[in-house]
Amino acid sequence: MMRLSRYFLPILRETPKEAEIVSHRLMLRAGMIRQEAAGIYAWLPLGLRVLNKVCDVVRAEQDRAGAIEILMPTIQAADLWRESGRYEAYGKEMLRLKDRHERELLYGPTAEEVVTEIFRASTRSYKDLPKNLYQISWKFRDEVRPRFGTMRSREFLMKDGYSFDIDQAAARHSYNKVFVSYLRTFERLGLRAIPMRADTGPIGGDLSHEFIILAKTGESEVFCDQAYLDMPVPPPSVDFDDVAGLQGVVDAWTSHYAATDEMHDEAVFAEVPEASRLSARGIEVGHIFYFGTKYSTPMKAVVTGPDGSERPVHMGSYGIGPSRLVAATIEASHDEAGIIWPDAIAPFDVALINLKVGDGACDTACAEIQAALETAGLSVLYDDRDERPGAKFATADLIGLPWQVIVGPKGLAEGKIELKRRASGERETLDPVDLPARIRRL
Amino acid sequence: MMRLSRYFLPILRETPKEAEIVSHRLMLRAGMIRQEAAGIYAWLPLGLRVLNKVCDVVRAEQDRAGAIEILMPTIQAADLWRESGRYEAYGKEMLRLKDRHERELLYGPTAEEVVTEIFRASTRSYKDLPKNLYQISWKFRDEVRPRFGTMRSREFLMKDGYSFDIDQAAARHSYNKVFVSYLRTFERLGLRAIPMRADTGPIGGDLSHEFIILAKTGESEVFCDQAYLDMPVPPPSVDFDDVAGLQGVVDAWTSHYAATDEMHDEAVFAEVPEASRLSARGIEVGHIFYFGTKYSTPMKAVVTGPDGSERPVHMGSYGIGPSRLVAATIEASHDEAGIIWPDAIAPFDVALINLKVGDGACDTACAEIQAALETAGLSVLYDDRDERPGAKFATADLIGLPWQVIVGPKGLAEGKIELKRRASGERETLDPVDLPARIRRL
Repeated sequence: MMRLSRYFLPILRETPKEAEIVSHRLMLRAGMIRQEAAGIYAWLPLGLRVLNKVCDVVRAEQDRAGAIEILMPTIQAADLWRESGRYEAYGKEMLRLKDRHERELLYGPTAEEVVTEIFRASTRSYKDLPKNLYQISWKFRDEVRPRFGTMRSREFLMKDGYSFDIDQAAARHSYNKVFVSYLRTFERLGLRAIPMRADTGPIGGDLSHEFIILAKTGESEVFCDQAYLDMPVPPPSVDFDDVAGLQGVVDAWTSHYAATDEMHDEAVFAEVPEASRLSARGIEVGHIFYFGTKYSTPMKAVVTGPDGSERPVHMGSYGIGPSRLVAATIEASHDEAGIIWPDAIAPFDVALINLKVGDGACDTACAEIQAALETAGLSVLYDDRDERPGAKFATADLIGLPWQVIVGPKGLAEGKIELKRRASGERETLDPVDLPARIRRL
Repeated sequence: MMRLSRYFLPILRETPKEAEIVSHRLMLRAGMIRQEAAGIYAWLPLGLRVLNKVCDVVRAEQDRAGAIEILMPTIQAADLWRESGRYEAYGKEMLRLKDRHERELLYGPTAEEVVTEIFRASTRSYKDLPKNLYQISWKFRDEVRPRFGTMRSREFLMKDGYSFDIDQAAARHSYNKVFVSYLRTFERLGLRAIPMRADTGPIGGDLSHEFIILAKTGESEVFCDQAYLDMPVPPPSVDFDDVAGLQGVVDAWTSHYAATDEMHDEAVFAEVPEASRLSARGIEVGHIFYFGTKYSTPMKAVVTGPDGSERPVHMGSYGIGPSRLVAATIEASHDEAGIIWPDAIAPFDVALINLKVGDGACDTACAEIQAALETAGLSVLYDDRDERPGAKFATADLIGLPWQVIVGPKGLAEGKIELKRRASGERETLDPVDLPARIRRL
């Protein structure tokens, strides 16, 4: 039960001029975030609810694919990064610091070294493989020019997972599991993400895909075959232990042309039938890597194989950024009036709007509706503020909850309330008792 | 569905010699945590599950008391702490750092400044009060000698809440709400915590209580009246808007003698009837402060009162440390064989032990039992490893799940399995179909 009069929803009336892209503007205006330093944000109640819902979906799909959740510290020892050879190589994006004893530490931008240390300390035999350990935690990358709100912030939330396998073939299956889990994750978030072969960058390795969603305000240009827009995503029942089956899914999802600017080949793209060629702006929302023994060899993460000999494990790492996904979803789903949340990650399901607070009939009807909706498992933000109807409608449209239930004295006199679907703008008048079933039907 | 053969549970056979207290030893041995640097820990799957359960209880009771969840960044701007005057004052426990542009930042040890900034940016009128904003997030305090595992780590998880009120009387009510919510939180966690009048330290202010649990290995000496051990905690139906009612609860819970070492007065304690005098070791698990306008005045967090004049808000701050609570719970609840989890925060409800993996009858029975327990809403860790029974029993006792279900060929031949309650050691033999109801009864 949340009443807006008791909530903390600091709506901005003016459009913040520092915000260059629509998601940044809308997240500030809707009171979802507040900037505390360059590229560093506080998540206010409405924003945090969305962020947590995104994490819930990410977590559920990782668990389904057999990954196991852990939580590594944000502050890491520099010495661990010296073992892998990345401490000097990583550059200025890594936030380095010293503690009171002058020991060198850093704020983790990623966690290959830490997870490799955890793995090597405990795992001795190929019988304990495969393993995929993941966490959802805050990272820091000291970008030169942080911008675009939580789309490219310095402190950001990331789900990072790491797989450990006995050989390349097994590692490929682990990679495919995550590939498919990411397809499912984005689908559940209401986004169509297209896997594109990617450069491996500072993580290293030789097999990598970025997952890109298309949005006008995307950060980079991407080129792909339209076929990806309608390709089916595997259902919840997909068998993650079926090696050939998963490879088939990955093959299908990599069979057509798809490339980011960096990897684009105009000549190959020209072979795609013209009607299917799509060039657009894209936002990277996930990135997966297979990098073999790049970390396990220098860090001596070895297991005994079936023949009794020791060998370094084959690893991959896999990232999705929930704080970026919140912004990316808004880029893909908004209109002039504000945000349009997909049902799966809406901060509340229903905006309940009382047009005449203090009117006995309206107050009673709203209390009953709220109780009925919550009993039906729906979350409700009840606008019980002493405000004009126009301001309430504007707030509801801005914060973008999927449903608006409008209760006023005129309608109530006839036993009716109004229901509006935020996405389509469709309105209907109905009896309050029919409301939970009507909303649940969708 | 979690099978131990696929889980990541790195049990230690040896007792780690660096661990001085039993909770630290058991958390390492049970594969709950791993130290990554001095006072900095990774939470492994079993530990993370407990930590999340503690957070769920903390969150539920904060929400019940009307507090609203937000999430502030871990990295804060030094300038904000200059506004309050604490930047220079805080000392070496604060981890200070500089970004690539040489801007001064710090890893937040607490968040009074940030939350005051968030509040002042949006709130203008007494009509928007009271507010209590809280977060559950990682903090860093650079202790000289971090020790005792997650009991006193440098990077630690804290629920920190902050209340904003128009005057001292209203702030007192906000303080009382949290006081009562904390009583309820510790009760639900299976702990008896005693509020003790406390020194306010670097947070400042003039009203403060620590919540202390009694444990032989506690960090400090405490003195109190035995009456606190049986005092009833308010039920879930407690009305947090009832000003006089809450004050009555707080009065009752502060009516008897209770003091930490620092605040102890031997003469006053001597007036407690001898049979009721209790001196013991204690662990601080919560700390609450009312500090008036200490931050709002210098930081200009003002609202307009009913008379139209501006005034600084009265504030309080309130902390519970979930990562410390995990260790404190173990200090209070263990035996020679390992941890004994209270039901509310056990990582899984049931350890399902298959004594003969590969035996058709045992495997089938375990699969059926697991499905039946999960259908009944219980979480199960299934020991399907190829290990001797003795090793399985030792693991189950060590990790301390509340129930052990033991499935072996002899019992199955007679249609029976064994159920053991970890806390009492009681065992009974029963028909597998009766299991869910038997466990649910408690």
